[in-house]
Amino acid sequence: MIIDGKKIADTIKQEIRAKVDSLVSSGQRPPHLAAILVGHDGGSETYVAHKIRACEQCGFISTLLRFESDVEESELLSAIHKLNNDDGVDGFIVQLPLPRHINEQKVIEAIDYRKDVDGFHPINVGRMSIGLPCFRSATPAGIMMLLERYEIETNGKRCVVLGRSNIVGKPVATLLMQKGYPGNATVTVCHSATKDLKDICREADIIIAALGSPKFVTADMVKDGAVVIDVGTTRVKDETRKSGFKLTGDVDYDNVAPKCSYITPVPGGVGPMTIVSLMNNTLLAATHAIY
Amino acid sequence: MIIDGKKIADTIKQEIRAKVDSLVSSGQRPPHLAAILVGHDGGSETYVAHKIRACEQCGFISTLLRFESDVEESELLSAIHKLNNDDGVDGFIVQLPLPRHINEQKVIEAIDYRKDVDGFHPINVGRMSIGLPCFRSATPAGIMMLLERYEIETNGKRCVVLGRSNIVGKPVATLLMQKGYPGNATVTVCHSATKDLKDICREADIIIAALGSPKFVTADMVKDGAVVIDVGTTRVKDETRKSGFKLTGDVDYDNVAPKCSYITPVPGGVGPMTIVSLMNNTLLAATHAIY
Repeated sequence: MIIDGKKIADTIKQEIRAKVDSLVSSGQRPPHLAAILVGHDGGSETYVAHKIRACEQCGFISTLLRFESDVEESELLSAIHKLNNDDGVDGFIVQLPLPRHINEQKVIEAIDYRKDVDGFHPINVGRMSIGLPCFRSATPAGIMMLLERYEIETNGKRCVVLGRSNIVGKPVATLLMQKGYPGNATVTVCHSATKDLKDICREADIIIAALGSPKFVTADMVKDGAVVIDVGTTRVKDETRKSGFKLTGDVDYDNVAPKCSYITPVPGGVGPMTIVSLMNNTLLAATHAIY
Repeated sequence: MIIDGKKIADTIKQEIRAKVDSLVSSGQRPPHLAAILVGHDGGSETYVAHKIRACEQCGFISTLLRFESDVEESELLSAIHKLNNDDGVDGFIVQLPLPRHINEQKVIEAIDYRKDVDGFHPINVGRMSIGLPCFRSATPAGIMMLLERYEIETNGKRCVVLGRSNIVGKPVATLLMQKGYPGNATVTVCHSATKDLKDICREADIIIAALGSPKFVTADMVKDGAVVIDVGTTRVKDETRKSGFKLTGDVDYDNVAPKCSYITPVPGGVGPMTIVSLMNNTLLAATHAIY
């Protein structure tokens, strides 16, 4: 079965919209998400545009703050400081990556964790690991929502996470091993130093591929009936397309899909859920549901 | 080979002592660790006494603040606040567990993360997960030191962590999967919901047992030549002893040891290292090596 991330994302956006409508009709202002975008990277422009569009769909206010790529770090930090102190803004993100002359970690830590709807601040990362209420980072949270909406069993399942990044691999592993549903899985994290990776994958009931390596997961690595979640979104050159590229996942979809009980396509799988998680976090921020 | 945690701990305490002596001879005051102890639980009393003794061995100043078990949460929080603001104290711990009427998490989060030498504050947990400098929680850090001192290869090794607690299982899994040494292992975290646990253990090059379930790991679960780290310290009744109990690990030591390339005994394995990690964190706090 193909997991339709776009459809689930649309459903959740409608649910968020309904909550926003009810907030607004009770006299409150709509949730407000701000985004800081530095420079003009094509991918970042696209992501931010999608986030702003999602805000509209959810009935949120959105603000885009643009800086040129030669912006001084101090100027960025001062913009963050203003947003931290602006009661009219519930949450905000700084679109990554940032230019090399800017200390990304310093920027992330400058964000008030109570407005850190990307869930990248150490306090939110730590609280997630401990199992406390927090802003969970968008992609892992989106994956959990997909598993939940499709009622995919995770309890006691062997789950293999490919990749140990701070924004996907490590947090999704943490969430999948927590008590409760979706969770309670036996999680193995694989990475560049892993040996016998194919054998390990073949034992998995659930594979989360988050390596950023196009078509890395091949059919011989997947057990019959497995669930495959593809987080990869690499831009691969494709001159037949107007954009000049094709978004390509970490999974060799055409050959893997026939073996799976569930699989996410790229695009249209995890991607739309990432943005919906951000919307969900912004709603949680606006309603002070966490902090 | 038996991993002699006591010997390694003694060596590291001497190393710390040498650094403290050089600090003091350069005119600085020695590192100062404070401990808050609530009530009179036998285990807690013993742990705190060991920590104070270790402070003496390292040349640290130590302060013990005692409260009765009916202490109000607010009184405890106010003591923490004072320690946070006391420039004469480099780091402090609140010995856990606390009585039920006190919110343990609230107490942990009240500690200034820059003095949180137990590494339990969400900021330290989050920074550890991200891979940033931080106070690493004592037991996981102690395990890493043992692996390092015995030059045990972890790169690409299959590592199985039994238990997903916030103070051992999850953080040691995080450390073992990070890039670098000791790390770069392929880590699987097993817990109460795990199926085929014996099969999973049998594939492990390194087993970290942190369940608190005496003699849970039996010889049939361990591959020949495996490294077994036993974090369990359950007090099992033993009327032949003056204390009335025997500290018992999670590993059926007598039957497992002959199969292992390395194994930690209980007591005298991980336990002494936990306290040494605390000493190390206190030295790091005193020298502002992290924050």
